Amino acid sequence: MRIDLNADVGESFGAWSLGEDDALIPVVTSVNVACGFHAGDPVTIEQTISRAVAAGVAVGAHPGYPDLAGFGRRDMNMPVRELEAAIVYQVGAVAAFARAAGVELRHVKPHGALYNRAADDPAIAEAVARGVARAGADLILVGLAGSASLDAGRAVGLRVAAEAFADRAYEADGRLRSRSQAGAVLDDPDACARQAIALAGDAALRPDTICVHGDRPGAVRRARAVRRALEDAGIEVRALASGVATA
Amino acid sequence: MRIDLNADVGESFGAWSLGEDDALIPVVTSVNVACGFHAGDPVTIEQTISRAVAAGVAVGAHPGYPDLAGFGRRDMNMPVRELEAAIVYQVGAVAAFARAAGVELRHVKPHGALYNRAADDPAIAEAVARGVARAGADLILVGLAGSASLDAGRAVGLRVAAEAFADRAYEADGRLRSRSQAGAVLDDPDACARQAIALAGDAALRPDTICVHGDRPGAVRRARAVRRALEDAGIEVRALASGVATA
Amino acid sequence: MRIDLNADVGESFGAWSLGEDDALIPVVTSVNVACGFHAGDPVTIEQTISRAVAAGVAVGAHPGYPDLAGFGRRDMNMPVRELEAAIVYQVGAVAAFARAAGVELRHVKPHGALYNRAADDPAIAEAVARGVARAGADLILVGLAGSASLDAGRAVGLRVAAEAFADRAYEADGRLRSRSQAGAVLDDPDACARQAIALAGDAALRPDTICVHGDRPGAVRRARAVRRALEDAGIEVRALASGVATA
Amino acid sequence: MRIDLNADVGESFGAWSLGEDDALIPVVTSVNVACGFHAGDPVTIEQTISRAVAAGVAVGAHPGYPDLAGFGRRDMNMPVRELEAAIVYQVGAVAAFARAAGVELRHVKPHGALYNRAADDPAIAEAVARGVARAGADLILVGLAGSASLDAGRAVGLRVAAEAFADRAYEADGRLRSRSQAGAVLDDPDACARQAIALAGDAALRPDTICVHGDRPGAVRRARAVRRALEDAGIEVRALASGVATA
Repeated sequence: MRIDLNADVGESFGAWSLGEDDALIPVVTSVNVACGFHAGDPVTIEQTISRAVAAGVAVGAHPGYPDLAGFGRRDMNMPVRELEAAIVYQVGAVAAFARAAGVELRHVKPHGALYNRAADDPAIAEAVARGVARAGADLILVGLAGSASLDAGRAVGLRVAAEAFADRAYEADGRLRSRSQAGAVLDDPDACARQAIALAGDAALRPDTICVHGDRPGAVRRARAVRRALEDAGIEVRALASGVATA
Repeated sequence: MRIDLNADVGESFGAWSLGEDDALIPVVTSVNVACGFHAGDPVTIEQTISRAVAAGVAVGAHPGYPDLAGFGRRDMNMPVRELEAAIVYQVGAVAAFARAAGVELRHVKPHGALYNRAADDPAIAEAVARGVARAGADLILVGLAGSASLDAGRAVGLRVAAEAFADRAYEADGRLRSRSQAGAVLDDPDACARQAIALAGDAALRPDTICVHGDRPGAVRRARAVRRALEDAGIEVRALASGVATA
Repeated sequence: MRIDLNADVGESFGAWSLGEDDALIPVVTSVNVACGFHAGDPVTIEQTISRAVAAGVAVGAHPGYPDLAGFGRRDMNMPVRELEAAIVYQVGAVAAFARAAGVELRHVKPHGALYNRAADDPAIAEAVARGVARAGADLILVGLAGSASLDAGRAVGLRVAAEAFADRAYEADGRLRSRSQAGAVLDDPDACARQAIALAGDAALRPDTICVHGDRPGAVRRARAVRRALEDAGIEVRALASGVATA
Repeated sequence: MRIDLNADVGESFGAWSLGEDDALIPVVTSVNVACGFHAGDPVTIEQTISRAVAAGVAVGAHPGYPDLAGFGRRDMNMPVRELEAAIVYQVGAVAAFARAAGVELRHVKPHGALYNRAADDPAIAEAVARGVARAGADLILVGLAGSASLDAGRAVGLRVAAEAFADRAYEADGRLRSRSQAGAVLDDPDACARQAIALAGDAALRPDTICVHGDRPGAVRRARAVRRALEDAGIEVRALASGVATA
């Protein structure tokens, strides 16, 4: 049994810092690098990929809506053609830095409101999937386990990876609890660790990768607790490989 | 004897149109596609490359300063590290669309104030050249004939192409006349055609490519006049090839 | 009987031009000046207001979503607090240019997707109305006749103006025909003129102002036809006055 | 003897926080609120002014170059007309929030590279001064003591305030030491306090206001040390008043 552990990184912008990438990157096995539309700038992308490569961590792109002021968390009604092209653009930009650093992008995981929209809205999921496929036929599309995102990825011939969240509460029906609800976010490292173990063995979700968020205090401690718990449970923690497709 | 004929294209943005790309693209042999920083958006980049590929024209990237409001025409004191990364980002983004359209980027030509600054300022020229080289070792760097841009490109091992302008007046010393001077811009198609012929045979400038600007009325007529004149003079008009390096 | 005739103006941005403001402004009695979020830049705002003042036309602000790339036409889920503050910001910026030109802003009309959303969604309408009221208690809020926008404006104590469209088709139930439907847009000047006359006397809509769009070819001819028809029908065409409130 | 103590605030943007405004605002007597071009967004402006009003601190605008990615620290060659309009726009936007909070803007202090450029370049200083004067004839223009900024402000009839820096090293000739030099920035609260006392009595600089920077760790401690030292020395620390002009 094995699983990937991923984190969203490179979400600083210009003079503004966010997250503790230096400490977090070595704890996970894959990173999703912000592409400049919701966060990230060229120097930040370059530095982030450099750290990931140094840590031996798989590098992916983390494209979002073109909305710096809203950090990609406000849903936008982008026509699908614009969205698809926005994905190609962002993935292409980050891929250039990866190649310059000697690695190829492994995966793409949409960010924030786009991630959520793609999970529920097949037309948006298809636009994202087409954009990823055009940016690189070998890329793995990461999406919410059991969601439209993965169906769309498979439909265009992409390998996909099902994602679950160590630090977000799930409802009884397997959906993520809305952030507007109490208890939607788990802060306790032990609680995150227990949830990660449960998710890793969840026969319905069957996640390929578990996300730990890096944008709240305590992120590094939670990530370490999750990784240790997974390893202690005999689950191999390693990056998504070429053959990860769950289809 | 042969020469390339190039134009800056894809400089629309969202709801705003600029230039007559549909008519201009088939007249030239290379296009420089705006990358989203001074102009251009993902859909525009996609459409522009699609037209260029359909017309059999070589595709290059046209990166600029991150300044939509100023159309990349206002010089900015970007630290060289930021500038170098901005080049990698922009070229990478456009390269992804080229690849998705079945071609590889042939060249990179900086835009506007960055083009002018790189021609005169070796530190900026080096940052641009390093950025281009990191985005693709096979790319040809296009720069002002006789300028620091080309020296910097050669120094990092890039093939370079010397550029001259059919529709800009030159001073007796071979420098471009400043746009703030009267007569800096040539509007008459015949005058542009005559200048193109003279430039093609200029032993000092030895241009590999001649630019015709697309952002003023009459651009298509001027471009056609230039091309016809060159061909009538027995000069082969064709895109830069792999072995174009003037070094 | 009297009515205002309004147009959205100042929607150029940097090097990109849109519309025929010079010709259109003298034909109408009120202009709505883009504020820099969906279109417009400081110099454009300044020039546009200068033209409007010279033409004796009432000046209003035309705030939109923060989305240059989408021209404010893509709906965005902005939290109401962010939206309200975005209205204050945009109206304040344009008001400063109006004051510098010797006039006070008369009205505020939201743009594009925000206009449509405010017409249907009371929470968004209230955020817009609160933003306008905070930017100036004397401002008139312009909104779709019969919509939530006007109710929200009245609720916060603003004077409101009901708007109808000379160049958009209406359904039998009085709603605007969706732009995705055939025939949604009227191009013929005579058809626009006839519709303006009909709207001016519509007992259900009771419009205070009629909009003529400036962003399609033929806009000036349509605006002139509408104005002439209204005047020929004995309807006084003049700007919204302080006492216009329909409440 | 009296002096103002000012700080740049409101320099967060969207999801990104910068500075410790909550703790810093009550320590100073004037704040310069970022206007959205180099930093700041509508909600941040609103919150920052609300805090300043609650603390009884004078509110000013802190306009910068349109360069979020560079935090306004990269010099840009803006044509003076564009720069002047950019000042009107930014000051107008912030003024609307001030008025909505029940106060009038007291002053305007340019930010970063624009501040430095205006101190040395009379054409830029004049564009800034004209922009401020058009945004409000009663505004006080804050500029580097002894610089072109103040001359330009006086020339357009503005009241001006000469500024000195408690936490920046000065050269023997009275100029600020460049940030690229060692020791350009003072971190020790006692050193800042001593320098503030010396500056307050400097017969050549004759500062009206002393700046304490808020964007480095320890800012609040330094600001408190400076204020206490000034008060212990019998210098009244209070905001710029209407009659502060040094002309």
